[in-house]
Amino acid sequence: MTAALLEQYRERIQTELDRVVDFWLKYSHDKEHGGFFNCLGKDGKVYDELKYVWLQGRQVWMYSRLYRTVERFHRPEILDAAKSGAAFLQKFARVQASSGAGKCAFCLTRDGRAVKVQRTIFSECFYVMAMDELSRITQDKEMQVKLLVKLLYKVDSIYLMVSCQMFCPCSPQADAESMMDRLIFWVQTDSSDLSRPQLPGDPPVNSMAVPMMLLCLVDQLTEGRTDVAEKYKDLSGWCVERIIQHIQRDGNAILENVTLTGKELPGCQGRLQNPGHALEAGWFLLEYALKKEDVQLQKTAVDKFMEIPFHTGWDKQHGGLFYFLDVDGHCPTQLEWNMKLWWPHCEALIAYLMAYSHSRAPLLLDRFKLIYDYTFSHFSDEEHGEWFGYLSRQGEVVLDFKGGPFKGFFHVPRCLYMCEKLLDGLLERQDS
Amino acid sequence: MTAALLEQYRERIQTELDRVVDFWLKYSHDKEHGGFFNCLGKDGKVYDELKYVWLQGRQVWMYSRLYRTVERFHRPEILDAAKSGAAFLQKFARVQASSGAGKCAFCLTRDGRAVKVQRTIFSECFYVMAMDELSRITQDKEMQVKLLVKLLYKVDSIYLMVSCQMFCPCSPQADAESMMDRLIFWVQTDSSDLSRPQLPGDPPVNSMAVPMMLLCLVDQLTEGRTDVAEKYKDLSGWCVERIIQHIQRDGNAILENVTLTGKELPGCQGRLQNPGHALEAGWFLLEYALKKEDVQLQKTAVDKFMEIPFHTGWDKQHGGLFYFLDVDGHCPTQLEWNMKLWWPHCEALIAYLMAYSHSRAPLLLDRFKLIYDYTFSHFSDEEHGEWFGYLSRQGEVVLDFKGGPFKGFFHVPRCLYMCEKLLDGLLERQDS
Repeated sequence: MTAALLEQYRERIQTELDRVVDFWLKYSHDKEHGGFFNCLGKDGKVYDELKYVWLQGRQVWMYSRLYRTVERFHRPEILDAAKSGAAFLQKFARVQASSGAGKCAFCLTRDGRAVKVQRTIFSECFYVMAMDELSRITQDKEMQVKLLVKLLYKVDSIYLMVSCQMFCPCSPQADAESMMDRLIFWVQTDSSDLSRPQLPGDPPVNSMAVPMMLLCLVDQLTEGRTDVAEKYKDLSGWCVERIIQHIQRDGNAILENVTLTGKELPGCQGRLQNPGHALEAGWFLLEYALKKEDVQLQKTAVDKFMEIPFHTGWDKQHGGLFYFLDVDGHCPTQLEWNMKLWWPHCEALIAYLMAYSHSRAPLLLDRFKLIYDYTFSHFSDEEHGEWFGYLSRQGEVVLDFKGGPFKGFFHVPRCLYMCEKLLDGLLERQDS
Repeated sequence: MTAALLEQYRERIQTELDRVVDFWLKYSHDKEHGGFFNCLGKDGKVYDELKYVWLQGRQVWMYSRLYRTVERFHRPEILDAAKSGAAFLQKFARVQASSGAGKCAFCLTRDGRAVKVQRTIFSECFYVMAMDELSRITQDKEMQVKLLVKLLYKVDSIYLMVSCQMFCPCSPQADAESMMDRLIFWVQTDSSDLSRPQLPGDPPVNSMAVPMMLLCLVDQLTEGRTDVAEKYKDLSGWCVERIIQHIQRDGNAILENVTLTGKELPGCQGRLQNPGHALEAGWFLLEYALKKEDVQLQKTAVDKFMEIPFHTGWDKQHGGLFYFLDVDGHCPTQLEWNMKLWWPHCEALIAYLMAYSHSRAPLLLDRFKLIYDYTFSHFSDEEHGEWFGYLSRQGEVVLDFKGGPFKGFFHVPRCLYMCEKLLDGLLERQDS
């Protein structure tokens, strides 16, 4: 009976992934300037031509990943789209602002002129993800040019000719790694390039997003590359430690922001909970812990980063996961706190299915079922395809676009892609 | 019959203003560090100790204005509170960040350390409002210290003693005026102190807030001061011209952002409408036009800045004014677009009552009535006093605090104060 249910999920998820990919292939490609339109109305129509660097990078990553790992998406049009997006990013994303050398813009005009630069690291993170994943397809092909460099040394009056091979700077892999090094420098050594003035009332904060994102990038960059894995071997441990620091209140709460030493911060900032983010951190941690065969960390990932956000985040009255909550029950100051956003539900689906897939605990499948039913009945648009992103607390669509400044070709297809893979694994093991 | 209705409005508005003033006097004063707590829960309890400079400045302004112009608020505790807030601002608001010399912080810790600096001009604007209004009470009293400066000159071997009087730099009026000069420099000459990098895809925009705010400040600074009025005489014309540029689409729409030459901008930014802001601009313009006896501008203020936002902004299904709209009917990308916020309703009440007060056109009183009924039945909290700030489209309270990062002692009391004055005027004329 469980097998039948899983089969049913797989079928729906596969169909949904196909529809979502079709939607973005059909509506988002800018054939004139390269890259992707991000702002797509409910029917796919472009309502704004701005190009958001987070979303450009994520779309390149997703296309490349689908092309590389899912047979039915190993199609030239998907490869071409990924390359076009990457070329657009390599040509235009980096800004040479007076401050913030080497920063990527947050937002570009259709033809690639910088509109806005954020004082954070996330444009750069998605740039790294994009380039690294693409490099796994184009490796040793046309985009990865190795240069033969001849160096002439003079040693004790004797000239020595030394030849060495190096990556061309435009190789996506080299580009990803050099950007990653800059990111690590900003996060661990000196953030002054980000142009955030150091202010006496604003000590550095351990915000969940930063170690999560870096853990995700280490996982991305090191897959199958032992030399790179060696280079970043300390970083993943550092990220895990920083994520674990968010377990607060005697193990009963996951807080979004803590001090660098893992203490609770004062006020709203300190009390903030973001259930979707905790769940996403949960499956990042679980994936890492499974690779490392760290049983204790696997348990922490599920008990703390999946169960707690469910109990605090699930709206018992109307269903769905709240966007923000205050651990002491105060009203959050974010106007959208009680809205139901698509991405926390995507992250929850991955988290519970991954956890179930590993442990086969029925409770985890129940969690998946509950989120699945809410998600597919509320977010998916049967008429035009793709998902709505923003519902009221009561579950009505409040913003009806399919793509916007923060919603692109990423959370929905990544969720469907990962769930499909997990279900394939579960059903295979069921058969055998 | 109209007189009876106006009388009824006045009574309710007076009572409401008293309750609102009492609420902030009771809960918001920080007796230990000076200044005001901004984050007050529905019952007045402090849920975060951060102090927002916009709101500190606005509270100083409002207390000072009430003290100066409304007899029943001419009380020592209100004067003391205004002075305490101003002293806190003068001591802590200015940051000497590496970039942005002379900027005010956006947010301070309880004891005055800077937490955040925005790359805009609004903290400084509310600083000016606060200092100028306070100077009208303390003028020639203890805070306005004139210094006798003795300068010793040596001219051709003869020592000359020159005495002159100057304002002490801590005089609120001098402080307001020097900050105002800096603001004008940023807006009209060179904005690089704001640390916004000039980006090729982000040409300067005429955003409604800037000329509105400056027009409001000119009005503030010049009241009864002919020398100051002379100094800023060109600026108000410049502001009016910039505001008028927001009339677009052949006179049928008020758009929030336009180019510096008054053309429509592309995309969401260009299509954005903010009905509450347009209404606020409307009464700023009307007040200015009445003073100038500019009949054409009076008509523009009412026909364009009051009638258009009503027709586009009023929610015919659930009542209340939408927060944001897209002139072409696309879905705005602001998650809170369909929420009903307190402040647009405050601005609408002032706008329609001011316009009615001037023209006595029954339609304008009808508009006032409609907004009044919605506002008083939805925002005012009978249980604990003060107003809720954030409702869902359907009119339910979604965020239940009374004070937050953007809601302080300002829009509600300013609206009640101005409506009371307008009703007094109307009823007086009715009697005579």
